[in-house]
Amino acid sequence: MFESAEIGHKLDKAEFKREEPKLRQRLLDLQYELLKKGEFQTIILVNGVDGAGKGETVNLLNEWMDPRHIQTRAFGAMTDIERERPEMWRFWQALAPKGRIGILFGSWYTDPILRRVIGHEKRSEFERRLMGIRHFERMLVSEGALLLKFWFHLSKKSQKKRLNELSSHKKTAWRVGPEEWDHFKHYDEFVDVCEDALRETSTGEAPWEIIEGSDHGYRSLTAGRLLEDALAARLKGVRPVLSPSAPPPAPPVDGRTLLASFDYKRKLDRGVYAKKLVRLQGHLNLLTRSKKMRDRSVIMVFEGMDAAGKGSTVRRITQAIDARFYRVIPVAAPTDEERAQPYLWRFWRQVPGHGRLTIFDRSWYGRVLVERVERFASEFDWMRAYHEINDFEEQLTRSGAIVAKFWLAITPAEQLRRFKARQKTSYKRFKITDEDWRNRKRWPHYERAVNDMIDRTSSDLAPWNVIASDDKLFARIEALEGLCERIESGL
Amino acid sequence: MFESAEIGHKLDKAEFKREEPKLRQRLLDLQYELLKKGEFQTIILVNGVDGAGKGETVNLLNEWMDPRHIQTRAFGAMTDIERERPEMWRFWQALAPKGRIGILFGSWYTDPILRRVIGHEKRSEFERRLMGIRHFERMLVSEGALLLKFWFHLSKKSQKKRLNELSSHKKTAWRVGPEEWDHFKHYDEFVDVCEDALRETSTGEAPWEIIEGSDHGYRSLTAGRLLEDALAARLKGVRPVLSPSAPPPAPPVDGRTLLASFDYKRKLDRGVYAKKLVRLQGHLNLLTRSKKMRDRSVIMVFEGMDAAGKGSTVRRITQAIDARFYRVIPVAAPTDEERAQPYLWRFWRQVPGHGRLTIFDRSWYGRVLVERVERFASEFDWMRAYHEINDFEEQLTRSGAIVAKFWLAITPAEQLRRFKARQKTSYKRFKITDEDWRNRKRWPHYERAVNDMIDRTSSDLAPWNVIASDDKLFARIEALEGLCERIESGL
Repeated sequence: MFESAEIGHKLDKAEFKREEPKLRQRLLDLQYELLKKGEFQTIILVNGVDGAGKGETVNLLNEWMDPRHIQTRAFGAMTDIERERPEMWRFWQALAPKGRIGILFGSWYTDPILRRVIGHEKRSEFERRLMGIRHFERMLVSEGALLLKFWFHLSKKSQKKRLNELSSHKKTAWRVGPEEWDHFKHYDEFVDVCEDALRETSTGEAPWEIIEGSDHGYRSLTAGRLLEDALAARLKGVRPVLSPSAPPPAPPVDGRTLLASFDYKRKLDRGVYAKKLVRLQGHLNLLTRSKKMRDRSVIMVFEGMDAAGKGSTVRRITQAIDARFYRVIPVAAPTDEERAQPYLWRFWRQVPGHGRLTIFDRSWYGRVLVERVERFASEFDWMRAYHEINDFEEQLTRSGAIVAKFWLAITPAEQLRRFKARQKTSYKRFKITDEDWRNRKRWPHYERAVNDMIDRTSSDLAPWNVIASDDKLFARIEALEGLCERIESGL
Repeated sequence: MFESAEIGHKLDKAEFKREEPKLRQRLLDLQYELLKKGEFQTIILVNGVDGAGKGETVNLLNEWMDPRHIQTRAFGAMTDIERERPEMWRFWQALAPKGRIGILFGSWYTDPILRRVIGHEKRSEFERRLMGIRHFERMLVSEGALLLKFWFHLSKKSQKKRLNELSSHKKTAWRVGPEEWDHFKHYDEFVDVCEDALRETSTGEAPWEIIEGSDHGYRSLTAGRLLEDALAARLKGVRPVLSPSAPPPAPPVDGRTLLASFDYKRKLDRGVYAKKLVRLQGHLNLLTRSKKMRDRSVIMVFEGMDAAGKGSTVRRITQAIDARFYRVIPVAAPTDEERAQPYLWRFWRQVPGHGRLTIFDRSWYGRVLVERVERFASEFDWMRAYHEINDFEEQLTRSGAIVAKFWLAITPAEQLRRFKARQKTSYKRFKITDEDWRNRKRWPHYERAVNDMIDRTSSDLAPWNVIASDDKLFARIEALEGLCERIESGL
């Protein structure tokens, strides 16, 4: 795989001198066009072997273009905030917004490769992580991002020569420490593992570009031109062909659906309710203060039709928890900073640290519910959302989060009753808008979307808890019980 | 000061039961009105002695109102990210946006008081910190925030009783640890220091409310009603009277100003420039890699009239620095998340950690330049900005940042020449807009604003470096020299 990058590619100095100013000018023009359009983000991954000119290329790209609109991020040891969250969290935080260029020095590839070579992580784990990366990159490209993956390579001989060169100059000696020499000792294993990694992740939508790193002119001009071509093509509207998603599921031929076959008549007596509520709230409180929560977190999702009782159920839960430990995130229209990022970004930024509980009042499921039904998202976008959401929740779970998802199910008749009641109560009137009436008309569409959602995103790691909510008291107790069970079994 | 809060205030249980639902409803209504208007942020500080019901009050406020629109934050030990920044940084990050209620459990008072009592920090240092707090709170109130400061008090006898009570119940014993008993041993000193703190910071615009904490009903209803009254008044438009700022300085009677008396003719030969540039860039590179940078950061500010050469000067600096270590922040229109916060918030969020350099291409000085001249900010707002900016920069410096500010000074004639040149060069045309021509007409106003800015914000800690920039080569070398000197003397 690296054969062509070991033949000693070299560029005549005079030629580089001639070509550089032209390339630079074109890159700058393209950068401004990107900025002006502001339609997509450009992400450049800079990876490869030590001494192959990664740092030089990062600096050069910043020098060639306007560094004010480039966001360069290098990844070292994790901070304590990062360690408490899924490993991809810090990369989500580092995404440059639309219109900008983000250069990632070291990336989501660094840790899997290092762990495989130095930490002797299992092959199966290594492959699992590569699969996660493929999904992540596919998501980025589907969101419109231009993703460039540069791999800077050196043959074993060239690397040794280069490391020796760097070591012998006072100005560069700091760049070669024990770590670099240690990596060099593992050169052959490294190259084997990297080959695997590159092969497994060189997809049509996000291919790797391997660049021989020994000659400054060759390396720089190659990287620059690859960026130029990719940017120019993308700005002209050329996008990678993504395999289409599977067609949406057809409605069942017998017309019966999960929600429709649900028993909505279950009720709870107020006396029983009051007793159960106190007991369950006490139990929940103890659970949230358990020592085991110190390296765990809880993420709750509440979804349901308008007036299903999300707010009042959430309040019965928060009442039981110390206000210092929970956060409620009411999901409304995204801010402009959020709109300049992939869809899931605004949820990633809310991922809690250890010992914390985050409650989403509506959530990332908006994409496969309202955005699907109201056609705010294309079929391609909401169909891929199922996978992306499953990935997201799997990452949360792996990092120690307990994910508890609730669908509060009501009947159209009950919704109508509540809408009318809301209109009569002064302080609840704000809760009912024209939009609610409009949504109500699309009930069958929503129901179908909900059924599909539950079928496709209920997993062992993050199952849906569908709760009959025509009776509010019953629903609250069910939700509290379900939550306690979920936390207990998760801790 | 605490006398009235030691007399054993108590509320009849029946009365509390009668009053609570009414208060609750009014608070909820007010909360929604606040949310709907979205004009100001409400900040509630919850401080006081251990066992006085702080936690209970925080939980109760969340229970009474809609917790989805309340942001509760508790402050424990600093994270590593927080330790690398000024101590107020984490409070800035925790500010709830306009329309929301932010409850701070523990606040900017906790550390100064603890350090004075337990750490025996000097009285002068304690008072310096209180002064900083007064300035910060005055800023918040000037920005329109509703600031409520609750102090929950217990007499020594009541506190002992309360701590013993909590200890003896299994469910609450966790709340009384060695730290709480240690604080109790210092009760008298604590009360002395808190009295000082409260007296020094109970200002007209942000008074303290002292609430006796021993009785649940009394404490809760008092806090709730104080919040109700304050919110209701503020929503009706009642704002605290802030002492007006001093009048803006009159122009000098002889008409001479700093900028006008500047020598713009200084020039540099291209040969000399090239040599100096290489030498200075090498020097700067070494400085940024110095071991001393490990617990320092550098913040650069570049200001200047349109076409003064900010971008090209910044590029000569970034060329010398490893792209992993610097970030350029081009200051444009604020995002909507930024608009929902006090003016300086969007700069606070960019404060770099240790070992990093942040370059602001335009900055917080916009308030006293373009916003003053174009009347986007009222005189009250831009006049107070001088103090607020000096405070900000002092905090940055105290936390280890080296602040380097550059004004690139050009003459109107040179600007005109550059405008015309830009219009001729295709890829620079985007840089010149109608706005630039409009700004140009206001040259004398800008010049006066610049003079005032330099007079008022050039300090030992963060001096302005005014650079004659009619000759770009001269300006770049001057800026690089100034920057190197500044970093060298700061390290």
